[in-house]
Amino acid sequence: MSKFTLSVLVENKFGVLARIAGLFSARGFNIDSLAVSSTQDPSISCMTIVVDADKKTLEQIKKQLNKLIDIIKVIDLTDKRYVEKELVLINVNLESKTKEKIIQAVDSVGAEILDVGNETVTISETGDTNKINALIELLRPFGIKEVVRTGKIVIQTEGEKEGGR
Amino acid sequence: MSKFTLSVLVENKFGVLARIAGLFSARGFNIDSLAVSSTQDPSISCMTIVVDADKKTLEQIKKQLNKLIDIIKVIDLTDKRYVEKELVLINVNLESKTKEKIIQAVDSVGAEILDVGNETVTISETGDTNKINALIELLRPFGIKEVVRTGKIVIQTEGEKEGGR
Repeated sequence: MSKFTLSVLVENKFGVLARIAGLFSARGFNIDSLAVSSTQDPSISCMTIVVDADKKTLEQIKKQLNKLIDIIKVIDLTDKRYVEKELVLINVNLESKTKEKIIQAVDSVGAEILDVGNETVTISETGDTNKINALIELLRPFGIKEVVRTGKIVIQTEGEKEGGR
Repeated sequence: MSKFTLSVLVENKFGVLARIAGLFSARGFNIDSLAVSSTQDPSISCMTIVVDADKKTLEQIKKQLNKLIDIIKVIDLTDKRYVEKELVLINVNLESKTKEKIIQAVDSVGAEILDVGNETVTISETGDTNKINALIELLRPFGIKEVVRTGKIVIQTEGEKEGGR
């Protein structure tokens, strides 16, 4: 089992996401993460789906997705060059004795403090999934109140990946 | 008509998004933007919905949302303090004569260059909706090939907003 990233262009219509989610559910395909994003064309949405699968299952998933109506294009990024990012907003518990430590921790990884209240500090970070997960673990000891994260979005860059996956 | 931001906590189940989208569609409510994000609880997703409505319609929307099963909480952020961010990845057409100008434009707004190929430069930016829109307009003259954006996500900060909206 490996993680594969698919970029799926769909018609921006109600119900498309439900149909795709239903397909994965009915077939027992395992979604690791799913993000919905808009594109420069208001009629087209982009779904970034990370699946945990073997090569054979991946081919089945692509075949089934291509059968669905309202799906314009399924791009398997496995052998492609791409960049990935996600965005997270985090509310962390603030106490006078931990304030300095939280600010140091946030600074040490280059994250951004958006708001400092009496009992809560609000932090933002953008990066790949590992970077976001590391920040959450770094902040966990202080007490995490709330996490809102977009899920990974991707964009293809030029050329084929050297040597493939 | 004004823009109102709702933060809706929902059970992370297939079909919830479709039901919410269907509600807006059936009643003719106008969605300005919609982002789905994960939370620290894997069983709960957060939807950030920006609606274009008058005060009376907003109350109807909140009432209808609260009736839907699988909806845990509807938070109207109108009179609350919150921060908002979205993330965008952009592929811009690259020519030798425009390369310097693109790099200068990206630097001038503090965006990030992720990849430079022979014919494409890949750019990332995080910020509020106005900042993202301004970057896209700044890059448009060079030729935009692809835009992937998450939509606005929000997190509440401490206290009530002074003076309301």
